[in-house]
Amino acid sequence: MTDVALFGAGRIGKIHAGNLVRQPGVTLKYVVDVNAAAAGELAQKYGAKVGSADQAFGDAAVKAAVIASSTDTHAELIRRAAAAKKAIFCEKPVDLSLSRARECQQAVADAGVTCLIGFQRRYDPTFAALKERLAAGEIGEPEMLVITSRDPGAPPVDYIKVSGGIFKDMLIHDFDIFRWIVGDEAASVYATGSCLTDPAIATAGDIDSTAVTIRTRKGRLAQINTSRRAAYGYDQRFEVLGSKGMLQAGNHTPTEVTAATAASVSCDKPEHFFLERYAKAYANEMAHFFDALAKRSPVRTSIDDGVRALELADAATTSWREKRIVEL
Amino acid sequence: MTDVALFGAGRIGKIHAGNLVRQPGVTLKYVVDVNAAAAGELAQKYGAKVGSADQAFGDAAVKAAVIASSTDTHAELIRRAAAAKKAIFCEKPVDLSLSRARECQQAVADAGVTCLIGFQRRYDPTFAALKERLAAGEIGEPEMLVITSRDPGAPPVDYIKVSGGIFKDMLIHDFDIFRWIVGDEAASVYATGSCLTDPAIATAGDIDSTAVTIRTRKGRLAQINTSRRAAYGYDQRFEVLGSKGMLQAGNHTPTEVTAATAASVSCDKPEHFFLERYAKAYANEMAHFFDALAKRSPVRTSIDDGVRALELADAATTSWREKRIVEL
Amino acid sequence: MTDVALFGAGRIGKIHAGNLVRQPGVTLKYVVDVNAAAAGELAQKYGAKVGSADQAFGDAAVKAAVIASSTDTHAELIRRAAAAKKAIFCEKPVDLSLSRARECQQAVADAGVTCLIGFQRRYDPTFAALKERLAAGEIGEPEMLVITSRDPGAPPVDYIKVSGGIFKDMLIHDFDIFRWIVGDEAASVYATGSCLTDPAIATAGDIDSTAVTIRTRKGRLAQINTSRRAAYGYDQRFEVLGSKGMLQAGNHTPTEVTAATAASVSCDKPEHFFLERYAKAYANEMAHFFDALAKRSPVRTSIDDGVRALELADAATTSWREKRIVEL
Amino acid sequence: MTDVALFGAGRIGKIHAGNLVRQPGVTLKYVVDVNAAAAGELAQKYGAKVGSADQAFGDAAVKAAVIASSTDTHAELIRRAAAAKKAIFCEKPVDLSLSRARECQQAVADAGVTCLIGFQRRYDPTFAALKERLAAGEIGEPEMLVITSRDPGAPPVDYIKVSGGIFKDMLIHDFDIFRWIVGDEAASVYATGSCLTDPAIATAGDIDSTAVTIRTRKGRLAQINTSRRAAYGYDQRFEVLGSKGMLQAGNHTPTEVTAATAASVSCDKPEHFFLERYAKAYANEMAHFFDALAKRSPVRTSIDDGVRALELADAATTSWREKRIVEL
Repeated sequence: MTDVALFGAGRIGKIHAGNLVRQPGVTLKYVVDVNAAAAGELAQKYGAKVGSADQAFGDAAVKAAVIASSTDTHAELIRRAAAAKKAIFCEKPVDLSLSRARECQQAVADAGVTCLIGFQRRYDPTFAALKERLAAGEIGEPEMLVITSRDPGAPPVDYIKVSGGIFKDMLIHDFDIFRWIVGDEAASVYATGSCLTDPAIATAGDIDSTAVTIRTRKGRLAQINTSRRAAYGYDQRFEVLGSKGMLQAGNHTPTEVTAATAASVSCDKPEHFFLERYAKAYANEMAHFFDALAKRSPVRTSIDDGVRALELADAATTSWREKRIVEL
Repeated sequence: MTDVALFGAGRIGKIHAGNLVRQPGVTLKYVVDVNAAAAGELAQKYGAKVGSADQAFGDAAVKAAVIASSTDTHAELIRRAAAAKKAIFCEKPVDLSLSRARECQQAVADAGVTCLIGFQRRYDPTFAALKERLAAGEIGEPEMLVITSRDPGAPPVDYIKVSGGIFKDMLIHDFDIFRWIVGDEAASVYATGSCLTDPAIATAGDIDSTAVTIRTRKGRLAQINTSRRAAYGYDQRFEVLGSKGMLQAGNHTPTEVTAATAASVSCDKPEHFFLERYAKAYANEMAHFFDALAKRSPVRTSIDDGVRALELADAATTSWREKRIVEL
Repeated sequence: MTDVALFGAGRIGKIHAGNLVRQPGVTLKYVVDVNAAAAGELAQKYGAKVGSADQAFGDAAVKAAVIASSTDTHAELIRRAAAAKKAIFCEKPVDLSLSRARECQQAVADAGVTCLIGFQRRYDPTFAALKERLAAGEIGEPEMLVITSRDPGAPPVDYIKVSGGIFKDMLIHDFDIFRWIVGDEAASVYATGSCLTDPAIATAGDIDSTAVTIRTRKGRLAQINTSRRAAYGYDQRFEVLGSKGMLQAGNHTPTEVTAATAASVSCDKPEHFFLERYAKAYANEMAHFFDALAKRSPVRTSIDDGVRALELADAATTSWREKRIVEL
Repeated sequence: MTDVALFGAGRIGKIHAGNLVRQPGVTLKYVVDVNAAAAGELAQKYGAKVGSADQAFGDAAVKAAVIASSTDTHAELIRRAAAAKKAIFCEKPVDLSLSRARECQQAVADAGVTCLIGFQRRYDPTFAALKERLAAGEIGEPEMLVITSRDPGAPPVDYIKVSGGIFKDMLIHDFDIFRWIVGDEAASVYATGSCLTDPAIATAGDIDSTAVTIRTRKGRLAQINTSRRAAYGYDQRFEVLGSKGMLQAGNHTPTEVTAATAASVSCDKPEHFFLERYAKAYANEMAHFFDALAKRSPVRTSIDDGVRALELADAATTSWREKRIVEL
């Protein structure tokens, strides 16, 4: 049996709790959260205890830490988990600071523990199938990637203020997809953007609409278009043009109903937001984590991936702020 | 807590077991199967006991029986469960004999117990959403229904021989969909068919391809086309034309990947077969059953629905065998 | 140069006139219509003369007659054209009476002239491509055909009264598609139907919604569903299941615009009605006619096809009226 | 009657000739081409004369010049046509040199003649419908535009050498679409690109794959991705995100046939190349030209649009060559 400590009993913590208790041989032992009520409720639901970080890290039976607490706690928890030789499953981002993220990366490497960073999109059935087919050579070598990544609506401005900005908060997923799909590292990054949906976002020093271009060392090209607001819901698509064709990953819909009336022929809007769209991805991600632990095999989304995506987010932020192309 | 006895530890029994243990407050107490090894394996997986029917029906703590054993055992188990005042979840069909099915219907009515018959398609997200939108008047009154229902391949001929024939074995689901969607009862049934995929099916006295037409009392029209073999997989669609438009239920696919190459532009084939296509339907169906028990509300697919669908299957069989239109 | 006489200067006559003047080496010499104003207008537009049937048939320079006048004039014009050794292009149906249609068939055979009947759907790019791929063996042998054929709205009741009924007026096209695609002749026909959209149609002795099933000599199955009213426009689809897969012919749309809003994700409704949907089919049909004349090759839609489709329409009418299966 | 002189009897000249002779009241009087054989063949087909530029411009009956000759002749022909007070229909680009293009613009303005530049995409049924719906406010204010523009294969390297480079030769259409759809002028342009499909293109000093980003004065964003090679054919899509939704323009296909087999579910590839995809656009464009002349109304794609698109192509070329963001 693998005992696990979960840090964070909020929205995403609950998702992870539900998925981890379904893994064969896995027990949720501790729920750790500064919000005692939330911790208690979640612990009770799955027969776990409310615990402190000290308890969790000090308990030799605990083999893994699932970190789903707020971003500013990630680095410290990763370091403590690594020191305690626990396997780590940590939500993205590693940290908002690249130097702290690199310290975490070093700590994980020194401890020799498994560390999965929660880029859950790589575990989405559609995205993962596309990647497999690309890797199998179905469209030859990748040449161009276009990512469309739009949220149904912006988060509260108070969240935006502490989010690290749109590139670290939202596009970090897209930077990870870029690295995963294009199969080459960025040589230059250009980012521009605007505040088009809500002036309060500009007041908070951020933007809500961005256009990013990455050119890789081999000359491959990627474009990412992002908005905090799509009236029709959560838009999560990408397409890759290769030397022998194109693979496209489309949106998922709740149903396959089509309606034809005097007004229109219509189908479902995309799944509303990430909890719906990536429900299977989160489940697959957790299964992958414990499978990797069992097989002592590498994880698909390592802390190195976490650091690399953050480097791109930093470069994009610089490009946007300083209105220049950033070479990497 | 609701203790449950499961009858049948085969393919569909395993699906139901997995779904029922996920219901809050529900415990799988007994697994009953003549195949002791299968019963033992499933019981162990979910912490249940292997038991006999006598044990299960005699245990006052058992509140519900989930019947997933072979068709020829359904009637006896329904009667015993009703007599023991257990709520019943029974796979379709009630029985191959209409008279025995009616006896079960009477037994259930006399005992006043809940009895859900496993027409799982009504719980499919796409089909259920279509039904809701139809009921909400989105396309006015239904006028015509076209059902396409094709399996990826025929079952073994030994199964076909005891299956009751294609109308009771395969189209019974389509007859249920017809009743659910058209909102009127059949006045006449015409069925024809052929053996086109495997002569052994004809030797077994059955057909593998059918075309059924139903006219209702209000003059509404339904056509069902069915085949035991679709090279591209499990094809489960229907469309309803109403006075103000049309609603179509399309196939589900494993992913939303599209590939464009020099050869073609292609997307996924439909989910392979019923276990994949109706995975969510089976989960929703089980949740609905326990929800109905908790709320003492009627089930969406009652034993009356089971008997009505069987009546249509009998009428279609007669129409096909005797080459005549059957009035109901 | 091929001189041509056109009979009928109404809606469909104008379409044919526009297409025939585009054929290289073809001249529209006479326009014949009892409505002198209509004949005059059309003749002037294309530099032709208004003429009488006597003039047209008596002019040795006229090599072909295009008959687009009202149905009740077809038989007489076919016979006169055949007698005058003109090639014939005649709108469907040959005649409402099967015996008169057979007389025309005989007259054409005796004269040895080319006679194309205007089943324009066989010249539609989508339908024709499907047929070619089917003939090339892409899905093996055809087993089942499902035709959906719905008009955007019913014609005036005064037209319906003289139309010969829905089977001869509307489904005759579908019967032709059936023969063309299934590759076998009908052994039995079952037709049922209702008046669901307008009681005046019932008063006129007709129906507006039909469900037809045909079983062929080889046991292949076809189902046709038809309505005089589809709120969303002209619905012209069919699909054929074969031993190795399925081919589907979908609707054409005016544009490829998709709109995603808070309300829905929608695309275009189908082309509004036959003039729009079959614009290319009519053009291809006319080109095929003159191409067949030039090459002395058979036409794709002969008068034999016209008679056969009428036989099926007659059988369906009998089946519906007498509530019985009609053997052929 | 409007007499017209056509300059250029090559591939695109033939298309325009076929379309202009179909305009009511329009006569093709002269075909002018240095290739006398090509001019003769085309002139004969439509009953025109082979003529010289002097003849054409000197003939007072000639009211319009359609310029479809090689790019290096456009400027001189536009100036002569303007001087002769002929209306002008000229293929894109106006010229490869921005200063010469501006001289033409001035000449046209001074002469006060109509001058349509052949950005035929604005006349494509799908693109034009999208524009109308956008203008009607269906998705609110435009915020982001993504253009995908890929050819099925690169032209000969000898052509590329004199083409002015990919931005003037290929993306000039996309720059025009950008201006038309986004409804604001560019403030900055960033372009990058690579030679990925054929090293000979790099040797010729050009690239075959580009990624362009434009930010407008109002902060709206556009991304254009382009390749000289898409294995699956001519890919011509764009999508615009607005404050209330998204409009997408998809590819056109030759037919609406779908095939489902054991291998895949597939539909048609896009129309092969621009002659097929934009056949209707070319026809609409020519009709629009003569309609605008008749009504003395402005043309949809003026020489000002031609100059503006060239400015963007110049800016993109500079951005790519100098690896910098170009402010406009």
